[in-house]
Amino acid sequence: MKAPIIILDHPQLGENIGAAARAMGNFGLSQLRLVNPRDGWPNKQANIMASNAVAIVENAQVFTTFAQAAHDCQIIYTTTARDRYMNKPVVSPRIAANEMVTTHGSLQSALVFGPERTGLENDVIARADCIINIPVNAQYPSLNLGQAVVVCAYEWYAASMNGTWQPTLDPTENVRATKQEMENLFIHLETKLDENGFFKTRDNKPHMIRNIRTMLTRANFSDQEVRTFRGMIRNLTESEQRFE
Amino acid sequence: MKAPIIILDHPQLGENIGAAARAMGNFGLSQLRLVNPRDGWPNKQANIMASNAVAIVENAQVFTTFAQAAHDCQIIYTTTARDRYMNKPVVSPRIAANEMVTTHGSLQSALVFGPERTGLENDVIARADCIINIPVNAQYPSLNLGQAVVVCAYEWYAASMNGTWQPTLDPTENVRATKQEMENLFIHLETKLDENGFFKTRDNKPHMIRNIRTMLTRANFSDQEVRTFRGMIRNLTESEQRFE
Repeated sequence: MKAPIIILDHPQLGENIGAAARAMGNFGLSQLRLVNPRDGWPNKQANIMASNAVAIVENAQVFTTFAQAAHDCQIIYTTTARDRYMNKPVVSPRIAANEMVTTHGSLQSALVFGPERTGLENDVIARADCIINIPVNAQYPSLNLGQAVVVCAYEWYAASMNGTWQPTLDPTENVRATKQEMENLFIHLETKLDENGFFKTRDNKPHMIRNIRTMLTRANFSDQEVRTFRGMIRNLTESEQRFE
Repeated sequence: MKAPIIILDHPQLGENIGAAARAMGNFGLSQLRLVNPRDGWPNKQANIMASNAVAIVENAQVFTTFAQAAHDCQIIYTTTARDRYMNKPVVSPRIAANEMVTTHGSLQSALVFGPERTGLENDVIARADCIINIPVNAQYPSLNLGQAVVVCAYEWYAASMNGTWQPTLDPTENVRATKQEMENLFIHLETKLDENGFFKTRDNKPHMIRNIRTMLTRANFSDQEVRTFRGMIRNLTESEQRFE
């Protein structure tokens, strides 16, 4: 599958170019193209904001027209927040990402973002195969350029990893306790509670025990945590004896 | 369903607080809480970066400890990029968002983000019900704070709208052409091509016609576009006559 090229058309702020590059790095994209960046190129702010993805900024290609920037692309997705009244499909970034990875996986795609103040010109959108519209709250509809790139790059990364897209951290190093370890804990705890007169009436005791077992089962203790809990019971009951 | 509170723990840069607020506005979140922002509060850079979501910055609540900031929350999701070796579930932002909206929809949740340089302290993560880990490219693993908020807020918004999460733009104002309009177009085009000797051999003609019909059918013309196309045919054939 080919990763999309990110094209920023007439971007204004170096900070947003750098933010876009940083998000590209996070989410597996590397080809950045700029059409006529307003403040010239290279741009120091872009390098600073790119942080550890500065290589993506340094390798960015600069063009004078959108047509040149898109010359070798085969399918173009343009982002816009405004109605353009053109006869083109309009999709969410999630649908676009899935299309890019599946149906159009063999094509060189481009994700195109317009200048901060005005968005893409209609002449650019007319060249697009598809329009991406990021759903937003109507009360705060204005998306930052760099943040729009975050959303689209993130969705592409998720789609490209398909079933293997998941946290990279190990959820736990611990081993879930066995039911025998839990049973021993319950008996330890209930015995101590019984000795200390916790169960006011004999009638109430089975109900209380069921509640305690329910609440502690839900905590999904590891074997180590069972040992810690039993240590706490020993500590508390020993302290109490010390005060007698 | 209750929207999550965003808690930024010891945030360093006002720009990132403002960027977080802006993304919150875009994606339907409004409650921002700060624990000990490094550069004090209020912070002018936060207001500038928040853009049209400046009200979220102005309404942010500031606390001196994480426990105070989370006092009325019922379920806490902390974000981290590093292994913490704690016995807690680790999920993607998409799974977390779906949990917040479905299983835990009646609980007041908090999404917690740590300081830029170090991430959350282990003591804060120990208070969390769940860890969110945003899958990233191992080559560029460092996420910007504001951009991490974008991803989590975006996923919450998508999950909260469930089946109704889709572009807000109207895909087209146009009416797809009827098959009779397409048939009339094909006959018009094929007649003119035939008059001009386009079909070199009689044998080849049915095959060429099928190719032309296939390629133009794929363009999914509207009724207006069929009229435009037929206008172009008339124009081109008239021009040709003028040159004779």
